[in-house]
Amino acid sequence: MDEPENGDEDGPSVPRVGYEYLDHTADVQIHAWGTSLRQAFEQSALAMFGYMTELDTIEEQMTHSIETSGHDLESALYNFLDEWLFHFCAEPNFIPFRIEITDWREDPQDGSFHIEALGLGEVFDLNKHPQGTEVKAITYSAMQINQRTDYVETFVIIDI
Amino acid sequence: MDEPENGDEDGPSVPRVGYEYLDHTADVQIHAWGTSLRQAFEQSALAMFGYMTELDTIEEQMTHSIETSGHDLESALYNFLDEWLFHFCAEPNFIPFRIEITDWREDPQDGSFHIEALGLGEVFDLNKHPQGTEVKAITYSAMQINQRTDYVETFVIIDI
Repeated sequence: MDEPENGDEDGPSVPRVGYEYLDHTADVQIHAWGTSLRQAFEQSALAMFGYMTELDTIEEQMTHSIETSGHDLESALYNFLDEWLFHFCAEPNFIPFRIEITDWREDPQDGSFHIEALGLGEVFDLNKHPQGTEVKAITYSAMQINQRTDYVETFVIIDI
Repeated sequence: MDEPENGDEDGPSVPRVGYEYLDHTADVQIHAWGTSLRQAFEQSALAMFGYMTELDTIEEQMTHSIETSGHDLESALYNFLDEWLFHFCAEPNFIPFRIEITDWREDPQDGSFHIEALGLGEVFDLNKHPQGTEVKAITYSAMQINQRTDYVETFVIIDI
């Protein structure tokens, strides 16, 4: 913050004239697609990681599995991305360059989805992986999952 | 964009599997205050420039005058900031470290405001002034101008 032009103060830390910066918000919309829901979901997650670093700098040194579910497609996508983001943020800070959905099940009773997936990659390392933009959260804002014959696309806005 | 996992293509530029980044939005809220409307407006503009660079790197090499108006206080604030932003973006890319409102008139007939102001500063130069964040636009979103005795504060969200 710049020094106030008027030196008078109401207290030790609040100048009578001044400014400050409050809420900073930023987001980016990810558009991903494939010939199936699986592929579109996989690409959505890769897009998220691709915003954090350059995916071609990631080597195949380990694998990481996740398991998630959702009561509908939208929540399944949200949870799928959120789960990958969690495993990036938590130890060992895993970042994949490739993601494969190994199991995809829809419950015929309640329409819920259960997903298991495998990531190929390594531990994120700033000395090796260029720093992109921090992804803070997945959102449901304007989320879309459009299914057509042989073509599925997703739109997800992530907070950065 | 990452290479698609599936090499099949619909055409020369649209892989059947892939992703892209769409709309990127970002904003920051500026809170400025003073003992008068003049001071709060002056501080709002300084806050905007303070987001673009470090104000204490700007020397007093020239002055720049602006003149603006608004049919109410909110539009006067919007236009005041927009006018300064315009003069930063246009030749000679003037950036001030100090702003003084030299004339402030309210039309008693229609309640409109007319403002004249002077900026002290110089031509923006990346070799001298550290690059902060580009300010793309002023917005009316959640704008507030609160007046109390001896205390006026403004809240303005700017797109960055």
